[in-house]
Amino acid sequence: MISREDCVALDAADGLAFARARFSLPDGVIYLDGNSLGALPRRTPARVADTVTREWGEGLIRSWNSVEHGGAGWIDAPAKIGAKIARLIGAAADEVIVTDSVSVDIFKLAAAALALRPWRRVIVTEAGNFPTDVYVLQGLAQLTGIELRVVARDHIAAALDDSVALLLLTQTHYRTGGVHDMASLTAAAHAAGALACWDLSHSAGAVVVELNAANADMAVGCGYKFLNGGPGAPAFVYVARAHHDGLRQPLTGWFGHAAPFAFEGDYRPAAGIGQMLSGTPGMLGMAALGAGVATFDGIDMGVAAAKSRALGDLMLDLVAQRCPEIGIACPRDGRGAQVSLSHPNAYEITQALIARSVIGDFRPPDVLRLGFPALYVRYADVWDAVEYLSRVLANGEWREARFAVRRAVT
Amino acid sequence: MISREDCVALDAADGLAFARARFSLPDGVIYLDGNSLGALPRRTPARVADTVTREWGEGLIRSWNSVEHGGAGWIDAPAKIGAKIARLIGAAADEVIVTDSVSVDIFKLAAAALALRPWRRVIVTEAGNFPTDVYVLQGLAQLTGIELRVVARDHIAAALDDSVALLLLTQTHYRTGGVHDMASLTAAAHAAGALACWDLSHSAGAVVVELNAANADMAVGCGYKFLNGGPGAPAFVYVARAHHDGLRQPLTGWFGHAAPFAFEGDYRPAAGIGQMLSGTPGMLGMAALGAGVATFDGIDMGVAAAKSRALGDLMLDLVAQRCPEIGIACPRDGRGAQVSLSHPNAYEITQALIARSVIGDFRPPDVLRLGFPALYVRYADVWDAVEYLSRVLANGEWREARFAVRRAVT
Repeated sequence: MISREDCVALDAADGLAFARARFSLPDGVIYLDGNSLGALPRRTPARVADTVTREWGEGLIRSWNSVEHGGAGWIDAPAKIGAKIARLIGAAADEVIVTDSVSVDIFKLAAAALALRPWRRVIVTEAGNFPTDVYVLQGLAQLTGIELRVVARDHIAAALDDSVALLLLTQTHYRTGGVHDMASLTAAAHAAGALACWDLSHSAGAVVVELNAANADMAVGCGYKFLNGGPGAPAFVYVARAHHDGLRQPLTGWFGHAAPFAFEGDYRPAAGIGQMLSGTPGMLGMAALGAGVATFDGIDMGVAAAKSRALGDLMLDLVAQRCPEIGIACPRDGRGAQVSLSHPNAYEITQALIARSVIGDFRPPDVLRLGFPALYVRYADVWDAVEYLSRVLANGEWREARFAVRRAVT
Repeated sequence: MISREDCVALDAADGLAFARARFSLPDGVIYLDGNSLGALPRRTPARVADTVTREWGEGLIRSWNSVEHGGAGWIDAPAKIGAKIARLIGAAADEVIVTDSVSVDIFKLAAAALALRPWRRVIVTEAGNFPTDVYVLQGLAQLTGIELRVVARDHIAAALDDSVALLLLTQTHYRTGGVHDMASLTAAAHAAGALACWDLSHSAGAVVVELNAANADMAVGCGYKFLNGGPGAPAFVYVARAHHDGLRQPLTGWFGHAAPFAFEGDYRPAAGIGQMLSGTPGMLGMAALGAGVATFDGIDMGVAAAKSRALGDLMLDLVAQRCPEIGIACPRDGRGAQVSLSHPNAYEITQALIARSVIGDFRPPDVLRLGFPALYVRYADVWDAVEYLSRVLANGEWREARFAVRRAVT
């Protein structure tokens, strides 16, 4: 049996333990939902306050100017933060930019892929993909008349033929945590003449991502999960440099124009990744995302991903030892920085744990989902969480958990 | 001649003078660019800090829940703030919601209009409309094959025929400040069987807007100008209740789903205005926008708009008296809360004024644009601004203004 002392010893030996001081976590809370909303970085309140009070309040409109021209550099923030994210996902600095939401960005990227493969009219994605990915592709299909093929996970490669313009997959599955092999599926898409776009919402900051090495064409990801950017943080997009010439996305707002302040009559896309911008980016969310991404400063993603895997493995081992009535709804190997447990009363169990300050989330129909961000979750937290879980199960207190709403945000 | 004492007397008699205390303005700055980026409301720093530190830092994922269910009410914020904006634009509370940027929202609304008029394939807008409006419609046209007709201001009504699905206009022109007659142009669109969508970016919080009374079908507007929502604040959209059934917009992200947390396989639009949401809304920008809109609490838009007009009229009178070399590039009547002056060296003059802490902005080719938000601009500010303008012109100091960038955000 693994003891709490064993876990404390793992924390003492953890080369990433120092990173927890980069966050403000409420006392007594075991937060295993950083895969839904990352914890608050310690430096974020001051960074956001500076943006509000000094940059906006004192600099006013002048803060839009670049730093070299006396501004606060707001105009450059989407590309600058994108370049920092690039390091975490195996991309070049000029291939990533921060803009809009994952949903809006999927629309842009999928439409851009269709424009790059104009003689092909099919997009392939996976059944059970995160809902917004499928919903947005349905919206695009309804608007443009293209065909959306939603296929089972083990039929993806077989669905790729010479009618397919784009394969769009989420690398790390939101419910099971299962991780697709990006390189091989991208190669399969390319073999069929299609492009590959990866949703990294549950991957960026969680697992090792090598977009360039996998020859990925496009990617999108979430700022508010493992990147700790705050509630509804803006998303990021990646387009491989090889596609920058000839890129054409349909949400052609003025911030994606080659000369936004020339007020020209016709749209001309900015060079490079900048054309993925649409409207005026929100600078408060941008500032918080910058501070969130900075929690990874000096940290190797390989080390962080290995710790998250170890934390998840520990959770699975402890559950197997102490909670035999709990099922496992995630792969042991090839898993992201999360674990999915199953139980017919998973919803009530999730709520009973939250009442004990162990925060995870419920995903229908029967999944208790727990995330393990390497920067702030400790091995002892995992032990304590399973201790509470075993008590909640043993004394039946989950039966008391009656809550009217089932609302949480992945 | 109007004296400074006359202006001080106007301020002393101003029934809205109290509202200036709702803002934090830097000492010595005369800020006449609230039409580009509204000033910082005094309560915003605390409101944003509370969102960051308490709601996010302590509440964590639980803050997404509604207040009734123990959360911070993030899930309800877009509709709640939309309802407060509705009062300022003559709409019902359930017809307005906060989401995305003006650019992204124009795409959604224009596509929704095409879906409501599926047998019509033309959108009409005005040449010289704010660039992003035209750019986004060009992107939609390129994606869907519809026709975009960009017509001169005095040919708008003539361009409406039975092929037109939508007339999309900006009510208050960004460069001239000229205000369209919303009711008559909406009626002209309806007479042709088309819908009318109004961009209120330079209208909301600036002029009296009566969407319902004008029978307007759709509208969109900016959060960061006269609504004081902060840099890149989210935008708002309005859809008349008559169109809520059968509404269909293409950016079908999960926050616009009827049951976003049921994780269903297919998109089902939420009832009512909620379906205009797409991805997860950013809560830091949302909190600041809420505080910005709250600067209008208890204030009648008719009173505010009348004061802005009076400030602008004062500017035009003073310029006529004291700066004869300056041209007027805005209408005297039917003008928004802004004034446009012209001079061949408007760019350099704008920069020289900024160096003297009189902040306006330049718009190509030759316009110095000055905004008059009623809540914080004083009559004496207008006098002082013209005093500085006359000095800048008289001593030729604008010739010294050499600046490499021409960047500002409307």
